Amino acid sequence: MFTTNPFDDDKLHEECGIFGVSGGEGAAALTALGLHALQHRGQEAAGITSYDDRAFHTHRAMGHVAGNFDRKEIMDPLAGDSAIGHVRYATTGDSAMRNVQPLYAELAAGGFAIAHNGNISNASRLRRDLISTGSIFQSTSDTEVIIHLVATSRQPTLIDRFIDALKQIEGAYSLVCLTGDGLIACRDPLGIRPLVMGEREGAVIFASETVALDVVGAEFVRSVEPGELVIVKDGNVTSHRPFGGDAAARPCIFEWVYFSRPDSIAGNRSVYSVRKAIGAQLAIEAPVEADLVVPVPDSGVPAAIGFAQESGIPFELGIIRSHYVGRTFIQPGAEVRRLGVKLKHNANRDLIAGKRIVLIDDSIVRGTTSLKIVEMMREAGAKEVHFRIASPPTKHSCFYGVDTPRREKLLAANLDLGAMTRFIKADSLAFVSIDGLYKALGEPRRADNRPGYCDACFTGDYPTSLTDHEEQAAAAQLALLEERVG
Amino acid sequence: MFTTNPFDDDKLHEECGIFGVSGGEGAAALTALGLHALQHRGQEAAGITSYDDRAFHTHRAMGHVAGNFDRKEIMDPLAGDSAIGHVRYATTGDSAMRNVQPLYAELAAGGFAIAHNGNISNASRLRRDLISTGSIFQSTSDTEVIIHLVATSRQPTLIDRFIDALKQIEGAYSLVCLTGDGLIACRDPLGIRPLVMGEREGAVIFASETVALDVVGAEFVRSVEPGELVIVKDGNVTSHRPFGGDAAARPCIFEWVYFSRPDSIAGNRSVYSVRKAIGAQLAIEAPVEADLVVPVPDSGVPAAIGFAQESGIPFELGIIRSHYVGRTFIQPGAEVRRLGVKLKHNANRDLIAGKRIVLIDDSIVRGTTSLKIVEMMREAGAKEVHFRIASPPTKHSCFYGVDTPRREKLLAANLDLGAMTRFIKADSLAFVSIDGLYKALGEPRRADNRPGYCDACFTGDYPTSLTDHEEQAAAAQLALLEERVG
Amino acid sequence: MFTTNPFDDDKLHEECGIFGVSGGEGAAALTALGLHALQHRGQEAAGITSYDDRAFHTHRAMGHVAGNFDRKEIMDPLAGDSAIGHVRYATTGDSAMRNVQPLYAELAAGGFAIAHNGNISNASRLRRDLISTGSIFQSTSDTEVIIHLVATSRQPTLIDRFIDALKQIEGAYSLVCLTGDGLIACRDPLGIRPLVMGEREGAVIFASETVALDVVGAEFVRSVEPGELVIVKDGNVTSHRPFGGDAAARPCIFEWVYFSRPDSIAGNRSVYSVRKAIGAQLAIEAPVEADLVVPVPDSGVPAAIGFAQESGIPFELGIIRSHYVGRTFIQPGAEVRRLGVKLKHNANRDLIAGKRIVLIDDSIVRGTTSLKIVEMMREAGAKEVHFRIASPPTKHSCFYGVDTPRREKLLAANLDLGAMTRFIKADSLAFVSIDGLYKALGEPRRADNRPGYCDACFTGDYPTSLTDHEEQAAAAQLALLEERVG
Amino acid sequence: MFTTNPFDDDKLHEECGIFGVSGGEGAAALTALGLHALQHRGQEAAGITSYDDRAFHTHRAMGHVAGNFDRKEIMDPLAGDSAIGHVRYATTGDSAMRNVQPLYAELAAGGFAIAHNGNISNASRLRRDLISTGSIFQSTSDTEVIIHLVATSRQPTLIDRFIDALKQIEGAYSLVCLTGDGLIACRDPLGIRPLVMGEREGAVIFASETVALDVVGAEFVRSVEPGELVIVKDGNVTSHRPFGGDAAARPCIFEWVYFSRPDSIAGNRSVYSVRKAIGAQLAIEAPVEADLVVPVPDSGVPAAIGFAQESGIPFELGIIRSHYVGRTFIQPGAEVRRLGVKLKHNANRDLIAGKRIVLIDDSIVRGTTSLKIVEMMREAGAKEVHFRIASPPTKHSCFYGVDTPRREKLLAANLDLGAMTRFIKADSLAFVSIDGLYKALGEPRRADNRPGYCDACFTGDYPTSLTDHEEQAAAAQLALLEERVG
Repeated sequence: MFTTNPFDDDKLHEECGIFGVSGGEGAAALTALGLHALQHRGQEAAGITSYDDRAFHTHRAMGHVAGNFDRKEIMDPLAGDSAIGHVRYATTGDSAMRNVQPLYAELAAGGFAIAHNGNISNASRLRRDLISTGSIFQSTSDTEVIIHLVATSRQPTLIDRFIDALKQIEGAYSLVCLTGDGLIACRDPLGIRPLVMGEREGAVIFASETVALDVVGAEFVRSVEPGELVIVKDGNVTSHRPFGGDAAARPCIFEWVYFSRPDSIAGNRSVYSVRKAIGAQLAIEAPVEADLVVPVPDSGVPAAIGFAQESGIPFELGIIRSHYVGRTFIQPGAEVRRLGVKLKHNANRDLIAGKRIVLIDDSIVRGTTSLKIVEMMREAGAKEVHFRIASPPTKHSCFYGVDTPRREKLLAANLDLGAMTRFIKADSLAFVSIDGLYKALGEPRRADNRPGYCDACFTGDYPTSLTDHEEQAAAAQLALLEERVG
Repeated sequence: MFTTNPFDDDKLHEECGIFGVSGGEGAAALTALGLHALQHRGQEAAGITSYDDRAFHTHRAMGHVAGNFDRKEIMDPLAGDSAIGHVRYATTGDSAMRNVQPLYAELAAGGFAIAHNGNISNASRLRRDLISTGSIFQSTSDTEVIIHLVATSRQPTLIDRFIDALKQIEGAYSLVCLTGDGLIACRDPLGIRPLVMGEREGAVIFASETVALDVVGAEFVRSVEPGELVIVKDGNVTSHRPFGGDAAARPCIFEWVYFSRPDSIAGNRSVYSVRKAIGAQLAIEAPVEADLVVPVPDSGVPAAIGFAQESGIPFELGIIRSHYVGRTFIQPGAEVRRLGVKLKHNANRDLIAGKRIVLIDDSIVRGTTSLKIVEMMREAGAKEVHFRIASPPTKHSCFYGVDTPRREKLLAANLDLGAMTRFIKADSLAFVSIDGLYKALGEPRRADNRPGYCDACFTGDYPTSLTDHEEQAAAAQLALLEERVG
Repeated sequence: MFTTNPFDDDKLHEECGIFGVSGGEGAAALTALGLHALQHRGQEAAGITSYDDRAFHTHRAMGHVAGNFDRKEIMDPLAGDSAIGHVRYATTGDSAMRNVQPLYAELAAGGFAIAHNGNISNASRLRRDLISTGSIFQSTSDTEVIIHLVATSRQPTLIDRFIDALKQIEGAYSLVCLTGDGLIACRDPLGIRPLVMGEREGAVIFASETVALDVVGAEFVRSVEPGELVIVKDGNVTSHRPFGGDAAARPCIFEWVYFSRPDSIAGNRSVYSVRKAIGAQLAIEAPVEADLVVPVPDSGVPAAIGFAQESGIPFELGIIRSHYVGRTFIQPGAEVRRLGVKLKHNANRDLIAGKRIVLIDDSIVRGTTSLKIVEMMREAGAKEVHFRIASPPTKHSCFYGVDTPRREKLLAANLDLGAMTRFIKADSLAFVSIDGLYKALGEPRRADNRPGYCDACFTGDYPTSLTDHEEQAAAAQLALLEERVG
Repeated sequence: MFTTNPFDDDKLHEECGIFGVSGGEGAAALTALGLHALQHRGQEAAGITSYDDRAFHTHRAMGHVAGNFDRKEIMDPLAGDSAIGHVRYATTGDSAMRNVQPLYAELAAGGFAIAHNGNISNASRLRRDLISTGSIFQSTSDTEVIIHLVATSRQPTLIDRFIDALKQIEGAYSLVCLTGDGLIACRDPLGIRPLVMGEREGAVIFASETVALDVVGAEFVRSVEPGELVIVKDGNVTSHRPFGGDAAARPCIFEWVYFSRPDSIAGNRSVYSVRKAIGAQLAIEAPVEADLVVPVPDSGVPAAIGFAQESGIPFELGIIRSHYVGRTFIQPGAEVRRLGVKLKHNANRDLIAGKRIVLIDDSIVRGTTSLKIVEMMREAGAKEVHFRIASPPTKHSCFYGVDTPRREKLLAANLDLGAMTRFIKADSLAFVSIDGLYKALGEPRRADNRPGYCDACFTGDYPTSLTDHEEQAAAAQLALLEERVG
C-alpha cells in the first residue's frame, strides 16, 4: 500500500531504476532484492549483470523482477561478488529485448556492462557520428551511445575512456557500470536523476532510492553527488570529479511529488513528510469547507493526510483501489470496457453519499482519470467535489528520462484553471503553488535565478542544452524504422 | 489500496467468490468483470460457463481473471445471455484443473453447471455412498457431490432433482447453477456464506459481494435470504423455500472483519464503517498513550482510522506496503531470503523513529507476521509498540469454507494474552471483545443463546452438525491418494 | 525410414496403439519406450498410468511420446512395477485432453485404468442408457462407456464387473487395464485389433505390435487370442474365455497392408515379407514393361522391392521424401502453398527423365496424393507412368477403429478402374486382387464363406453387427454439441 | 525417406544452408520453402530477412523452419520482394539467439543483412584487430567479422566495402547479402561450399542446393562460380571477379558422400547417381559372398542399391528406421536408456536370421553407431556381417564449416583397418578407395598435384592457409568465456 502508483496510464512515468553492489556475497541476489524495491520505477523489463573476477554473467527478461529473478536456474549462473541491475520503463514503443539493460560489450580493455537512469539529450547526434565511422548499434537505446564512445576512445585505460565518453554526452544520467577494473557509479553534473550509496557488511551499494538499501539491510551512507564519479575496487572507494567546476545541483523535483516511494529518503528529506507538507500547504493556500478529505489512492494518500491534519477535516477512504489492476484487463466490447473503469477505483458509497468531499491527488497529466473519479464521486452521491492537487500544473515535456505526453495532451498546457475545473467537472480545483512546493521542501520560495531543483515540467526552465531537441522529429522516424527492422 | 489483503500467508483465506447473470447481453464479459471485483476471494483459479440457449460453453484457467478472461479468443466462444463464474482459493493441496469451477455435467435432464462458495460438511460420506452405486468422480471437490446427487435423483424435473440433492447436504453453501431451465441461485439455511442479488438493464445478477454489482453497473436489489432458492428463467424471478421452517440466519462474521472488500455492503452494513467502528471500540476498550496510530496495511487501515478518530492520536502511514508482492518472490539462499521480509512491508523510518506507536491489524492467525512487524518497528527506532487487533482471538477451526490453520498453529488457541504479547514482542496487546465486535455491528452485545452471526472461529459455537468432522482424518488421506493418482 | 507413413493425409489412419507391463522395474519407462515404437499408430496424444501397489499415477499429454515421456519430472512420479500406456489418433474432431487415454476412475472396487485400441459399435446406445440412470460422462470417448459399465455392474468382484461390461459391448477392441487386482489384457471375440504378449526378465508385457517388444528387449511369447482375457497378478498369468464359443478369428487385414511397422511380426508372419509378397503378386497379376520400379516412399518400399525382384526391373529411389514434413508447414498464400507439395516428395529428376516407370504404393484412399505424384513424375520427364497398388480398391468405411473418409471421398467407391486411371493421370493402374492379397498371406485364396481376415474396407463384408450405425448421424451431432460445450 | 540423415550424432554435420531471392513476390515465403528443403543442412535455428525497398524485416528462431516460418503473424511482417534466409547447425556450444543468422546491421551506407555457409579461417585474428579499434561484437559468430569489416572500410560504396572485406578473409564461404543496393551472392575463391543460381518468373534465386530450387518451382540456371560475386538489382544480374586470378575449384567432396540431398544436382552430377556409383565401385573393390545387401538407413541406401546392382546380391531392408527419432528421447535410468538404442534402428529379424549380410553406410566417424548396428544384426541372427563404407576413412578435421569431432575421436585417425574391424565387431570391413571415390565422380583417379575437390578430411590436404589454426586453442577459450557472459 501507499507506494507510488505504477499502473496508472494518466501519470508521468519514471524511466528506470538502477542498483549496483561491489564486494558482497550473493551480489546478484542482493541486486534482485534491490530491483524489486525499485520496481515502481519501471515494470517493463529487468536485468542483472554480475562479475566473478573471471567472467561477466547477464540475464535480462521482459516483465517484473519477481517471477524472473527469483528462480534458481536464473540466479545460480549470476555468480560473483559484484553486480549491477536495472528496471526499465519503455519511453519509446521499442520494447524489444535488445533494449533491456544492463547493456554489455566486450571491449579491447575488457568486459563493460552499464545500467542507466535518465536520458542523453544529444544521443541522436552522437549515434550518427559513431555509425559514420563504423560503429554498429544493436539497440535503439541512448545508453548504447556511451558504450561505443568508450569502445572508440583513444584514452589509455578503461576508466579514462569512460570519462572521455561522459564528457561528450549531455542530459540526465545516473549510471552504474561493471568492469574488470571495478564498479563505477556516476551522476550527471546537475544530479538530475537520483543515486544513493549505502554499505552492508563491507559491500558498497548504489541505488536509485534508499528503499532499496532498506530492503537489502544496508545502511545509507550518502548520496552520490552531482558530477561525481565513484569507483569501487577491492573494497576501496575513490571519488572523482571529471567535470571539474561546480554547477549547482538541480535534482528532479518530481521525485518528491510522485516518483520515489514514500518510505525513501531523498536529498535528506523523507518523501512521505514532504508529501504531507505539500498537502498541508495546499490546505493553507486553497482551503475549502468540506466533510471529508479523500485521497485518490495510492499516490494521493500522504498529501491527503497532511491536508486533513492541517484543515481538521476527517481523512477517510472514500475511494477503494483494487489490488489486481496491475495486470492488464481489457475486455472486448466497448460497452463492457466502459464498465471496466471501476475495476481499479470504486467509490465507498456509504461514506460518500450526501457529503462534501475534498479529493487529493499528486498531479494532473491528461486529466482523464481525474474526470472519471469526479464522476464516480457524483454517482455515489457526493454533494460537492473539490479537487486539490499536490503539485503545480504540469505544462512542459521532460527531456531527462521521464515519459511525458506530448504537450497537446497535457491538460495544464492547454487549459486555464477555470477550463480545467470544468473539464474534470469539479466544484473547485486548486494546485499547490510553485513557491508552496519549494516551501514543503524546506526553502522559503523558488529562487528563480538559481532554483534548487529541476522543475522544468512546471516552469519550462530546462537546466541543460537540448541538442537533439530540434532533431527529434527525424529521430522519431529513425526509431520507427529501426523498430520495423526488428 | 485498501481492499482486503489477499497475499498474506498469515491471514485466513476465503475459499471462493461466485457470480451469475441471467438475461444480459455479453453475460460472460459481465461475469469476468464481476469475478475480477471478487478476485480477493480466490486467486488460484477462475472459470466461467455460459449458455446460449443451445449449448454450454466453459473456460477455466489457473491464475487470475485478468490475463485469462480478457482475451478475445477466450471470451468470444463464451456466447450467450446467461453465465456463471467462480474464483477459487484452494483449501487442499489439490489445485488440479479438474477442481476448478464451474463444474459441468451433461445429465439426462440436460446440461448442468455449478459454482459453489462454502463447504459441504458431509461431503465425504455422500461421496462414498455415490461411488458404491456406480458414480464416477472426476474431482476431489465437495461440489461434485451435488452434481452426482442431481444426476442420480429419481425426481421428475431438473429443479426437483436439484432440491432433492440440496436436502441431502449439510454445511455452508452459496450456489449459482446454470441449466437449460434457468439460472438458479441459492444459499444454505443459515446463510453462512454471502450472496446478493442485483439488476442491470433487465438482467438479474447474483454475486458474493456488492462490489461486483458496482463494477458491472448493477443496482443492488437485496440479499438472497438464508434457505432461499431463486430461479431466473426468461426474465421471471421466482423464489423458493425448499427447506421450509425458519432457522435464524448465522452469516459468517469474518466477512466484516476481513474477507469482504471495504467498499462492499454486507447485511445492509458498510464493511468499511463496521471496521472503523471496531477500531473506535478498540480505542474505548483498550486505550493507550501514544504518538501515532499506524495500520498494518492494507487490511488494518479502516480500523486504524476509527481508532485514530476515537482516540485523537494522529493516523500515519508508518508501514509502506509494496504493490508488487502479489507475485511470489522467493530468493534462493537463506541469508537473502531473510532480507526479503522487507519486500512486502517497509518501515517509514523517518516517521517511526523515537515515537510511541499503536499498530492496528484486523486479526492474528499464526502471529508470525505480527512478530516481524513489531521487530521492524523496533529496528526503525520506535520507542514503544502497542498492538491492537480488530477482532477477538481466533481460536477455532472453520468447517464452512475458510482455510484455517490447524488449531496447533493458531496462536490464540495455544497462548494466553500475556504469552501472546511476549511472542510478538509488543509492549502491549489487546483484542476487541466479542461483545465489542457485535456492538460495531449494531447489536448491544452477543446474544449467546441466539447469536446473529456464525462466530465459531472465535467462540467454537458451530451452528450446524459436522458429519464429516470425525471422518476427516480418513478423508484427508483419501484426498492425498486421489491427488497422487492425478 | 521405411516405417509406415504416419504423416500422410491421404492414408487410412489407425486409431491407437496400446502397451502394458506387469511386474517390471521401471514399468512406466518401459511403457514409454514401447509407446515410442508404436508412435506410428497415433501421434496426437499419449498417456501412461502406473500402479505402485498403493496408488495409481497418470500422465497424459498432447503430442508425441518423445518430448513428453522422457522428462525426469514426468517419469519419476510414474512409480511402480505395473503400467499401461496409449498413443492416440483422433478420429473425431474432439481432441481435448479429456479424451486422451488411459482413462482412469476410482470405483467402489478400487482404481481402474484402461487403454483401448478399436471402436465399440454400440457405444452411443450404451452411453444414453447410462446417462439416463445417473452416470456422468467426462469425455466423448467410446472407451468411457466401458468404465461406467464396470462402475454400475452389480457383480461381486472387479474382474466379474469387467467381464459383465465386456459382454454388453460390440465391435473391435484390444484392451489393457490396470487395477489393484492385476493387469488385464483382452481382445474382442474376432480379434479384429492386434495384441501380442511378451516376456522380459519375469515381467509380462502386452503390446499392439511386436516392434514394441523388440524395443524393450522382450521376447515374443504369443498373440493374445481372439476372445481371450489374460490377467497378470503377482507374476501369475491366467487366461479366461468370457465369451465362450469360438467364432473364427477375423484380424484386420490392413495391418499387413499398411498399419503395422514392416519389422513387426503379425499373426506369425513378417509384415515386411507379406508386403514384398504382395508386390511380387502384383508383378504377376499386372506386369508392365518399364525401366524402373519406384516406390512411393515410405510405405510403398517393401512392395516395390518385391515387384522389382519378381519382374527383374531395377528398383530405384525415384522419389525422395523429406524427413521434416511430420511437422505441419502451411504457408500463408495460395500460390506459395501450391509449391509446398514438393516439400514432402521431390522427384529424383536425373533418374526419372526419359524413363518408363512403375510406381508402387500401398493403397489409394482419396487419390489426391497419387495424382500429385504422377504429375511430379511427368514434370520430371518420365516417358510413361504406371501405377501399381499393393492392396485391392478401398471401397467401404471401417467401423472398427480406423479413420476412413466418408464413402463419397473414397476414390474406388465412386470410380471404376478406367476412371480412376484417368483421375490420377497414369498410363496404367492396377490393384492387387483380393485373392492375390490372401495369397501373399499364405492362403490359396479368400474363403468367401469363412474369410480369415476382416477385409470389410475392400469387400463390405462386416463381421459384427453395427448397432450404432444407423444412429450415427445423431451421434455425430451429439459429439458436436458436446465438443462445443467444452 | 532417403534424404540425408540429420539426426545422427555419429555423422559429420554441415553447418548451414542459405537461400536468397531477388524480385519475387512473397520473397520471404519462397525463402521459407527453400530453407525447409535445406533443413537437413541445419536444424538448430533458422532466420529470414526481407527488404521492401523501405525497411528490412527480420525474424529468427531456434528450431525448425516448420513451426516457425509458417505462421501468419511471423510471415506477414516479412514484407518485400527480396529476402535471404539461413538454417544453422551450431558447431560450438554457443547456440544463443544472437548467433542465429541472417545477421543484420545498420551501417552508414544503409542496412546490411548477411547469411553465411562455411567457416572463416582467420576470423579470430580479424576479430581481435577490430575490437582493438572500437568495434563491438554482439555474437560469437565468425560471420559478424564480415559485417564489421564492411562497417569500418574506407571504400566509397557499400559494394566496394563488401569486396574490401572479402579480400581480408580466408577460408570457405558461400554468402548471400541483402542491401539497399541489391542482393549479393558470392562464393569463396575455391568454391568450397556450394551455391547455385536459379530463376522463377523473373525472380533470381540462390540456394545451397538445387532441391531448394525444385521446391519453389525455380529452374536451375548455373552454379555460382568459385570466386564469383553476383549482384542482382532491379532484375539486372551482374557478375564480378573481385579476387581476379583463377585458382582451380576445390568443392567439398563430402557434399556428394553425405551432406547434399540425394535429389540434388551438385557440380552437374546427380548426388544419387554418384552415391550409387560409389556403391558399385565398392562392390568391385571389396566384393564379398553374401545373401543380402542391407543399407544403414537412410544415408546408406543409394550406395546399397549400387552395390546390390553391381554384385547381384539382393537389396533388402534389413534395418528399419523410425520416423520419430528426430525428437530427442532420453529416458532417465541407464538400464532403460540402453534399450533405447533400438528406438532409432530396429532389425528386420525375420529377414536377417541365418543370413550373410553386407551392411552399407556412407561413412564412419566415431564408429559407435556402426558397432551398435553390427551387434543388432548378430542379435537378430545374422550368420556373417560385412561392413562396406561408401567413403574413404575419415582421418582429419575440417576447418571449412563442417563439425568434425576432434581427431582423437575419429576412429580412422586412431586405428588401422584390422583394429577398426575388431572395434565394430564385423566379419570384414572395407572403405572405398580415394581413387574409387574420384572415379564415381567421373574422374580417372585423384590428381594428387591438382585434385578437383577438397578432400582434406580423407587426405589432410588443406587447400587454404589456416591462420587461426594455431590460435584455435586460445580461440576456444575465448568462445567459452563469451558464452559464459551470455
